[in-house]
Amino acid sequence: MKKYQEQVNKWFEEKGWGYWEPLAITARLFEECGEFAREVNHIYGPKKKKLEEKKKDIEDEMGDIIYTLICFANSHGIDLGEAVQKSIDKVADRDKDRYKK
Amino acid sequence: MKKYQEQVNKWFEEKGWGYWEPLAITARLFEECGEFAREVNHIYGPKKKKLEEKKKDIEDEMGDIIYTLICFANSHGIDLGEAVQKSIDKVADRDKDRYKK
Amino acid sequence: MKKYQEQVNKWFEEKGWGYWEPLAITARLFEECGEFAREVNHIYGPKKKKLEEKKKDIEDEMGDIIYTLICFANSHGIDLGEAVQKSIDKVADRDKDRYKK
Amino acid sequence: MKKYQEQVNKWFEEKGWGYWEPLAITARLFEECGEFAREVNHIYGPKKKKLEEKKKDIEDEMGDIIYTLICFANSHGIDLGEAVQKSIDKVADRDKDRYKK
Repeated sequence: MKKYQEQVNKWFEEKGWGYWEPLAITARLFEECGEFAREVNHIYGPKKKKLEEKKKDIEDEMGDIIYTLICFANSHGIDLGEAVQKSIDKVADRDKDRYKK
Repeated sequence: MKKYQEQVNKWFEEKGWGYWEPLAITARLFEECGEFAREVNHIYGPKKKKLEEKKKDIEDEMGDIIYTLICFANSHGIDLGEAVQKSIDKVADRDKDRYKK
Repeated sequence: MKKYQEQVNKWFEEKGWGYWEPLAITARLFEECGEFAREVNHIYGPKKKKLEEKKKDIEDEMGDIIYTLICFANSHGIDLGEAVQKSIDKVADRDKDRYKK
Repeated sequence: MKKYQEQVNKWFEEKGWGYWEPLAITARLFEECGEFAREVNHIYGPKKKKLEEKKKDIEDEMGDIIYTLICFANSHGIDLGEAVQKSIDKVADRDKDRYKK
Protein backbone atom coordinates (compact mmCIF):
# COMPACT_ATOMS: atom_id res chain seq x y z
CA MET A 1 0.00 0.00 0.00
CA LYS A 2 2.82 2.39 0.97
CA LYS A 3 4.32 1.89 -2.46
CA TYR A 4 1.23 3.19 -4.24
CA GLN A 5 0.76 6.09 -1.85
CA GLU A 6 4.36 7.24 -2.37
CA GLN A 7 4.11 6.89 -6.12
CA VAL A 8 1.07 9.15 -6.25
CA ASN A 9 2.59 11.63 -3.80
CA LYS A 10 5.84 11.89 -5.71
CA TRP A 11 4.03 12.39 -8.94
CA PHE A 12 1.69 15.10 -7.64
CA GLU A 13 4.76 16.86 -6.25
CA GLU A 14 6.61 16.70 -9.55
CA LYS A 15 3.59 18.07 -11.36
CA GLY A 16 3.01 20.73 -8.72
CA TRP A 17 -0.56 19.46 -8.35
CA GLY A 18 -2.57 19.77 -5.17
CA TYR A 19 -5.11 17.21 -4.05
CA TRP A 20 -8.78 18.16 -4.39
CA GLU A 21 -10.59 19.42 -1.34
CA PRO A 22 -11.82 16.61 0.93
CA LEU A 23 -15.55 16.90 0.14
CA ALA A 24 -14.80 16.85 -3.59
CA ILE A 25 -12.72 13.66 -3.15
CA THR A 26 -15.64 12.19 -1.18
CA ALA A 27 -18.03 12.98 -4.03
CA ARG A 28 -15.54 11.35 -6.40
CA LEU A 29 -15.45 8.26 -4.17
CA PHE A 30 -19.24 8.16 -4.46
CA GLU A 31 -18.97 8.34 -8.25
CA GLU A 32 -16.31 5.61 -8.49
CA CYS A 33 -18.21 3.30 -6.12
CA GLY A 34 -21.35 3.92 -8.16
CA GLU A 35 -19.53 2.76 -11.29
CA PHE A 36 -18.36 -0.33 -9.41
CA ALA A 37 -21.96 -1.02 -8.29
CA ARG A 38 -23.13 -0.73 -11.91
CA GLU A 39 -20.64 -3.39 -13.01
CA VAL A 40 -21.61 -5.68 -10.12
CA ASN A 41 -25.26 -5.29 -11.12
CA HIS A 42 -24.40 -6.18 -14.71
CA ILE A 43 -23.26 -9.59 -13.52
CA TYR A 44 -25.33 -10.35 -10.43
CA GLY A 45 -28.37 -8.12 -10.97
CA PRO A 46 -31.09 -8.65 -13.57
CA LYS A 47 -28.77 -8.33 -16.59
CA LYS A 48 -26.77 -11.47 -15.86
CA LYS A 49 -23.83 -10.89 -18.10
CA LYS A 50 -20.99 -13.33 -17.77
CA LEU A 51 -18.44 -12.62 -15.05
CA GLU A 52 -15.56 -13.15 -17.45
CA GLU A 53 -16.93 -10.47 -19.77
CA LYS A 54 -17.06 -7.86 -17.02
CA LYS A 55 -14.18 -8.85 -14.75
CA LYS A 56 -11.78 -6.33 -16.27
CA ASP A 57 -14.31 -3.54 -15.74
CA ILE A 58 -14.79 -4.58 -12.13
CA GLU A 59 -11.02 -4.58 -11.59
CA ASP A 60 -10.73 -1.13 -13.16
CA GLU A 61 -13.42 0.30 -10.92
CA MET A 62 -11.81 -1.21 -7.80
CA GLY A 63 -8.48 0.32 -8.78
CA ASP A 64 -10.18 3.71 -9.24
CA ILE A 65 -11.79 3.49 -5.80
CA ILE A 66 -8.44 2.77 -4.14
CA TYR A 67 -6.75 5.53 -6.17
CA THR A 68 -9.40 7.95 -4.85
CA LEU A 69 -8.77 6.76 -1.28
CA ILE A 70 -5.02 7.25 -1.80
CA CYS A 71 -5.62 10.89 -2.83
CA PHE A 72 -7.60 11.50 0.33
CA ALA A 73 -5.11 9.63 2.53
CA ASN A 74 -2.11 11.44 1.06
CA SER A 75 -3.67 14.83 1.61
CA HIS A 76 -4.30 13.92 5.26
CA GLY A 77 -1.11 12.07 6.17
CA ILE A 78 -2.96 8.76 6.57
CA ASP A 79 -1.17 5.41 6.16
CA LEU A 80 -3.69 3.18 4.35
CA GLY A 81 -1.70 0.00 5.00
CA GLU A 82 -1.92 0.61 8.72
CA ALA A 83 -5.61 1.47 8.39
CA VAL A 84 -6.49 -1.78 6.58
CA GLN A 85 -4.39 -3.84 9.01
CA LYS A 86 -6.39 -2.38 11.88
CA SER A 87 -9.66 -3.26 10.15
CA ILE A 88 -8.51 -6.84 9.60
CA ASP A 89 -7.43 -7.12 13.25
CA LYS A 90 -10.77 -5.70 14.39
CA VAL A 91 -12.76 -8.36 12.55
CA ALA A 92 -10.38 -11.03 13.91
CA ASP A 93 -10.78 -9.70 17.46
CA ARG A 94 -14.54 -9.62 17.18
CA ASP A 95 -14.41 -13.24 16.05
CA LYS A 96 -12.17 -14.27 18.97
CA ASP A 97 -14.57 -12.69 21.45
CA ARG A 98 -17.42 -14.63 19.94
CA TYR A 99 -15.75 -17.91 20.77
CA LYS A 100 -14.68 -16.89 24.27
CA LYS A 101 -18.23 -16.29 25.42
CA MET B 1 -45.35 11.22 -3.99
CA LYS B 2 -48.28 8.74 -4.04
CA LYS B 3 -49.06 9.81 -7.59
CA TYR B 4 -45.62 8.76 -8.84
CA GLN B 5 -45.62 5.52 -6.91
CA GLU B 6 -49.02 4.52 -8.35
CA GLN B 7 -47.99 5.47 -11.87
CA VAL B 8 -44.94 3.20 -11.70
CA ASN B 9 -46.90 0.40 -10.06
CA LYS B 10 -49.67 0.50 -12.65
CA TRP B 11 -47.22 0.48 -15.46
CA PHE B 12 -45.15 -2.44 -14.14
CA GLU B 13 -48.41 -4.36 -13.72
CA GLU B 14 -49.52 -3.64 -17.27
CA LYS B 15 -46.16 -4.75 -18.62
CA GLY B 16 -46.11 -7.81 -16.36
CA TRP B 17 -42.74 -6.68 -15.05
CA GLY B 18 -41.44 -7.53 -11.61
CA TYR B 19 -39.24 -5.23 -9.57
CA TRP B 20 -35.56 -6.16 -9.28
CA GLU B 21 -34.42 -7.92 -6.15
CA PRO B 22 -33.74 -5.53 -3.26
CA LEU B 23 -29.92 -5.76 -3.27
CA ALA B 24 -29.88 -5.10 -7.01
CA ILE B 25 -32.05 -2.00 -6.53
CA THR B 26 -29.66 -0.91 -3.77
CA ALA B 27 -26.69 -1.26 -6.14
CA ARG B 28 -28.66 0.77 -8.68
CA LEU B 29 -29.26 3.46 -6.06
CA PHE B 30 -25.48 3.54 -5.53
CA GLU B 31 -24.96 3.98 -9.26
CA GLU B 32 -27.55 6.74 -9.62
CA CYS B 33 -26.23 8.62 -6.56
CA GLY B 34 -22.72 8.28 -7.95
CA GLU B 35 -23.85 9.96 -11.18
CA PHE B 36 -25.44 12.72 -9.13
CA ALA B 37 -22.18 13.16 -7.16
CA ARG B 38 -20.27 13.45 -10.45
CA GLU B 39 -22.52 16.29 -11.61
CA VAL B 40 -22.22 18.08 -8.26
CA ASN B 41 -18.44 17.77 -8.50
CA HIS B 42 -18.52 19.23 -12.00
CA ILE B 43 -19.95 22.43 -10.54
CA TYR B 44 -18.60 22.66 -7.00
CA GLY B 45 -15.49 20.51 -7.25
CA PRO B 46 -12.27 21.38 -9.07
CA LYS B 47 -13.88 21.58 -12.53
CA LYS B 48 -16.07 24.61 -11.76
CA LYS B 49 -18.45 24.43 -14.64
CA LYS B 50 -21.33 26.85 -14.52
CA LEU B 51 -24.38 25.75 -12.56
CA GLU B 52 -26.70 26.70 -15.40
CA GLU B 53 -24.81 24.42 -17.78
CA LYS B 54 -25.22 21.40 -15.50
CA LYS B 55 -28.55 22.07 -13.78
CA LYS B 56 -30.54 19.89 -16.17
CA ASP B 57 -28.12 16.97 -15.57
CA ILE B 58 -28.42 17.42 -11.82
CA GLU B 59 -32.22 17.40 -12.09
CA ASP B 60 -32.12 14.26 -14.23
CA GLU B 61 -29.95 12.42 -11.72
CA MET B 62 -32.18 13.44 -8.81
CA GLY B 63 -35.21 12.17 -10.71
CA ASP B 64 -33.42 8.85 -11.33
CA ILE B 65 -32.57 8.50 -7.64
CA ILE B 66 -36.20 9.00 -6.64
CA TYR B 67 -37.38 6.63 -9.39
CA THR B 68 -35.02 3.99 -7.94
CA LEU B 69 -36.41 4.59 -4.45
CA ILE B 70 -39.96 4.25 -5.84
CA CYS B 71 -39.09 0.82 -7.28
CA PHE B 72 -37.81 -0.32 -3.90
CA ALA B 73 -40.75 1.23 -2.03
CA ASN B 74 -43.36 -0.27 -4.36
CA SER B 75 -41.87 -3.75 -4.04
CA HIS B 76 -42.05 -3.43 -0.25
CA GLY B 77 -45.39 -1.68 0.25
CA ILE B 78 -43.74 1.47 1.57
CA ASP B 79 -45.46 4.87 1.32
CA LEU B 80 -42.64 7.31 0.49
CA GLY B 81 -44.77 10.39 1.18
CA GLU B 82 -45.34 9.17 4.73
CA ALA B 83 -41.64 8.33 5.06
CA VAL B 84 -40.46 11.81 4.02
CA GLN B 85 -43.08 13.49 6.24
CA LYS B 86 -41.70 11.54 9.20
CA SER B 87 -38.15 12.64 8.36
CA ILE B 88 -39.21 16.29 8.17
CA ASP B 89 -41.06 15.99 11.49
CA LYS B 90 -38.01 14.35 13.08
CA VAL B 91 -35.71 17.24 12.16
CA ALA B 92 -38.37 19.69 13.38
CA ASP B 93 -38.73 17.81 16.68
CA ARG B 94 -34.98 17.70 17.20
CA ASP B 95 -34.93 21.45 16.67
CA LYS B 96 -37.75 22.04 19.17
CA ASP B 97 -35.91 20.04 21.82
CA ARG B 98 -32.83 22.13 21.29
CA TYR B 99 -34.69 25.27 22.27
CA LYS B 100 -36.48 23.70 25.22
CA LYS B 101 -33.28 22.83 26.99
CA MET C 1 -43.49 16.27 -3.77
CA LYS C 2 -44.06 20.06 -3.99
CA LYS C 3 -45.82 19.94 -0.64
CA TYR C 4 -42.74 18.55 1.12
CA GLN C 5 -40.36 20.92 -0.64
CA GLU C 6 -42.45 23.94 0.37
CA GLN C 7 -42.77 22.74 3.95
CA VAL C 8 -38.99 22.45 4.31
CA ASN C 9 -38.41 25.79 2.58
CA LYS C 10 -40.91 27.65 4.74
CA TRP C 11 -39.43 26.18 7.86
CA PHE C 12 -35.80 26.98 6.97
CA GLU C 13 -36.93 30.54 6.23
CA GLU C 14 -38.70 30.91 9.56
CA LYS C 15 -35.65 29.63 11.40
CA GLY C 16 -33.31 31.77 9.35
CA TRP C 17 -31.35 28.65 8.43
CA GLY C 18 -29.35 28.27 5.26
CA TYR C 19 -28.93 24.99 3.40
CA TRP C 20 -25.55 23.28 3.65
CA GLU C 21 -23.12 23.73 0.81
CA PRO C 22 -23.79 21.32 -2.09
CA LEU C 23 -20.79 19.00 -1.54
CA ALA C 24 -21.70 18.66 2.14
CA ILE C 25 -25.28 17.71 1.22
CA THR C 26 -23.83 15.19 -1.25
CA ALA C 27 -21.71 13.65 1.53
CA ARG C 28 -24.85 13.52 3.68
CA LEU C 29 -26.69 11.76 0.86
CA PHE C 30 -23.87 9.19 0.83
CA GLU C 31 -24.25 8.72 4.58
CA GLU C 32 -28.05 8.32 4.44
CA CYS C 33 -27.87 5.90 1.50
CA GLY C 34 -25.21 3.93 3.40
CA GLU C 35 -27.61 3.56 6.33
CA PHE C 36 -30.31 2.41 3.92
CA ALA C 37 -27.90 -0.15 2.41
CA ARG C 38 -27.11 -1.45 5.90
CA GLU C 39 -30.80 -2.07 6.60
CA VAL C 40 -31.29 -3.78 3.23
CA ASN C 41 -28.31 -6.01 4.01
CA HIS C 42 -29.81 -6.88 7.38
CA ILE C 43 -32.75 -8.44 5.59
CA TYR C 44 -31.41 -9.67 2.25
CA GLY C 45 -27.72 -10.07 3.04
CA PRO C 46 -26.15 -12.74 5.21
CA LYS C 47 -27.94 -11.66 8.41
CA LYS C 48 -31.44 -12.56 7.20
CA LYS C 49 -33.50 -10.71 9.75
CA LYS C 50 -37.23 -10.68 9.12
CA LEU C 51 -38.51 -7.95 6.82
CA GLU C 52 -41.25 -7.02 9.28
CA GLU C 53 -38.64 -6.39 12.00
CA LYS C 54 -36.68 -3.95 9.83
CA LYS C 55 -39.36 -2.39 7.64
CA LYS C 56 -39.75 0.69 9.85
CA ASP C 57 -35.97 1.28 9.73
CA ILE C 58 -35.96 0.96 5.95
CA GLU C 59 -38.83 3.46 5.70
CA ASP C 60 -37.00 5.89 8.00
CA GLU C 61 -33.85 5.73 5.90
CA MET C 62 -35.78 6.25 2.67
CA GLY C 63 -37.45 9.30 4.20
CA ASP C 64 -34.03 10.66 5.23
CA ILE C 65 -32.67 10.18 1.71
CA ILE C 66 -35.57 12.13 0.20
CA TYR C 67 -35.27 14.82 2.86
CA THR C 68 -31.60 15.22 1.91
CA LEU C 69 -32.55 15.48 -1.78
CA ILE C 70 -35.16 18.12 -0.88
CA CYS C 71 -32.47 20.23 0.85
CA PHE C 72 -30.32 20.08 -2.27
CA ALA C 73 -33.25 20.74 -4.60
CA ASN C 74 -34.52 23.69 -2.57
CA SER C 75 -31.12 25.33 -2.50
CA HIS C 76 -30.94 25.01 -6.30
CA GLY C 77 -34.49 25.83 -7.32
CA ILE C 78 -35.14 22.30 -8.57
CA ASP C 79 -38.68 20.88 -8.74
CA LEU C 80 -38.30 17.24 -7.66
CA GLY C 81 -41.79 16.26 -8.79
CA GLU C 82 -40.95 17.37 -12.30
CA ALA C 83 -37.60 15.57 -12.10
CA VAL C 84 -39.11 12.24 -11.09
CA GLN C 85 -41.86 12.57 -13.72
CA LYS C 86 -39.15 12.97 -16.37
CA SER C 87 -37.35 9.87 -15.10
CA ILE C 88 -40.54 7.82 -15.24
CA ASP C 89 -41.26 9.06 -18.76
CA LYS C 90 -37.70 8.23 -19.82
CA VAL C 91 -38.00 4.60 -18.75
CA ALA C 92 -41.41 4.42 -20.45
CA ASP C 93 -39.98 5.88 -23.67
CA ARG C 94 -37.05 3.51 -23.65
CA ASP C 95 -39.53 0.66 -23.30
CA LYS C 96 -41.68 1.89 -26.18
CA ASP C 97 -38.63 2.08 -28.43
CA ARG C 98 -37.78 -1.48 -27.57
CA TYR C 99 -41.08 -2.69 -28.94
CA LYS C 100 -40.99 -0.54 -32.04
CA LYS C 101 -37.79 -2.09 -33.27
CA MET D 1 -1.82 -4.99 -1.00
CA LYS D 2 -1.14 -8.69 -1.71
CA LYS D 3 -0.13 -9.16 1.92
CA TYR D 4 -3.52 -8.00 3.18
CA GLN D 5 -5.43 -10.02 0.62
CA GLU D 6 -3.57 -13.22 1.55
CA GLN D 7 -4.03 -12.61 5.24
CA VAL D 8 -7.81 -12.32 4.85
CA ASN D 9 -7.95 -15.31 2.51
CA LYS D 10 -5.96 -17.56 4.84
CA TRP D 11 -8.07 -16.57 7.76
CA PHE D 12 -11.42 -17.15 6.02
CA GLU D 13 -10.11 -20.57 4.96
CA GLU D 14 -9.06 -21.50 8.48
CA LYS D 15 -12.45 -20.47 9.81
CA GLY D 16 -14.25 -22.23 7.00
CA TRP D 17 -16.03 -18.98 6.18
CA GLY D 18 -17.31 -18.05 2.75
CA TYR D 19 -17.39 -14.51 1.42
CA TRP D 20 -20.78 -12.82 1.22
CA GLU D 21 -22.55 -12.74 -2.11
CA PRO D 22 -21.32 -9.91 -4.37
CA LEU D 23 -24.41 -7.67 -4.12
CA ALA D 24 -24.31 -7.93 -0.32
CA ILE D 25 -20.63 -6.90 -0.30
CA THR D 26 -21.57 -3.99 -2.57
CA ALA D 27 -24.26 -2.87 -0.11
CA ARG D 28 -21.65 -3.15 2.65
CA LEU D 29 -19.27 -0.99 0.63
CA PHE D 30 -22.08 1.58 0.40
CA GLU D 31 -22.50 1.45 4.18
CA GLU D 32 -18.77 1.80 4.90
CA CYS D 33 -18.36 4.67 2.44
CA GLY D 34 -21.39 6.35 4.00
CA GLU D 35 -19.68 6.21 7.41
CA PHE D 36 -16.54 7.68 5.85
CA ALA D 37 -18.62 10.49 4.28
CA ARG D 38 -20.16 11.23 7.69
CA GLU D 39 -16.72 11.67 9.24
CA VAL D 40 -15.56 13.89 6.37
CA ASN D 41 -18.68 16.01 6.85
CA HIS D 42 -17.93 16.32 10.57
CA ILE D 43 -14.70 18.09 9.71
CA TYR D 44 -15.33 19.85 6.40
CA GLY D 45 -19.13 20.17 6.43
CA PRO D 46 -21.17 22.50 8.63
CA LYS D 47 -20.05 20.91 11.93
CA LYS D 48 -16.40 21.93 11.65
CA LYS D 49 -14.88 19.66 14.26
CA LYS D 50 -11.12 19.65 14.42
CA LEU D 51 -9.34 17.31 12.05
CA GLU D 52 -7.16 15.93 14.85
CA GLU D 53 -10.27 14.92 16.81
CA LYS D 54 -11.70 12.90 13.92
CA LYS D 55 -8.58 11.66 12.13
CA LYS D 56 -8.63 8.27 13.84
CA ASP D 57 -12.28 7.77 12.83
CA ILE D 58 -11.48 8.69 9.24
CA GLU D 59 -8.59 6.22 9.21
CA ASP D 60 -10.83 3.48 10.64
CA GLU D 61 -13.47 4.03 7.98
CA MET D 62 -10.87 3.99 5.19
CA GLY D 63 -9.52 0.71 6.52
CA ASP D 64 -13.05 -0.73 6.57
CA ILE D 65 -13.64 0.32 2.97
CA ILE D 66 -10.46 -1.40 1.82
CA TYR D 67 -11.26 -4.49 3.90
CA THR D 68 -14.64 -4.65 2.13
CA LEU D 69 -12.93 -4.34 -1.27
CA ILE D 70 -10.53 -7.14 -0.27
CA CYS D 71 -13.47 -9.44 0.48
CA PHE D 72 -14.92 -8.78 -2.96
CA ALA D 73 -11.55 -9.09 -4.68
CA ASN D 74 -10.69 -12.35 -2.93
CA SER D 75 -14.00 -13.93 -3.85
CA HIS D 76 -13.38 -13.00 -7.50
CA GLY D 77 -9.66 -13.72 -7.88
CA ILE D 78 -8.84 -10.04 -8.37
CA ASP D 79 -5.37 -8.65 -7.54
CA LEU D 80 -6.04 -5.24 -6.00
CA GLY D 81 -2.41 -4.15 -6.19
CA GLU D 82 -2.46 -4.66 -9.94
CA ALA D 83 -5.82 -2.87 -10.16
CA VAL D 84 -4.61 0.23 -8.33
CA GLN D 85 -1.37 0.29 -10.34
CA LYS D 86 -3.43 0.36 -13.52
CA SER D 87 -5.52 3.24 -12.20
CA ILE D 88 -2.40 5.24 -11.32
CA ASP D 89 -0.93 4.56 -14.77
CA LYS D 90 -4.19 5.61 -16.41
CA VAL D 91 -4.19 9.02 -14.73
CA ALA D 92 -0.51 9.43 -15.61
CA ASP D 93 -1.18 8.52 -19.26
CA ARG D 94 -4.08 10.91 -19.48
CA ASP D 95 -1.78 13.63 -18.16
CA LYS D 96 0.97 12.81 -20.65
CA ASP D 97 -1.50 13.06 -23.53
CA ARG D 98 -2.55 16.46 -22.34
CA TYR D 99 0.96 17.78 -22.72
CA LYS D 100 1.57 16.16 -26.08
CA LYS D 101 -1.30 17.96 -27.72
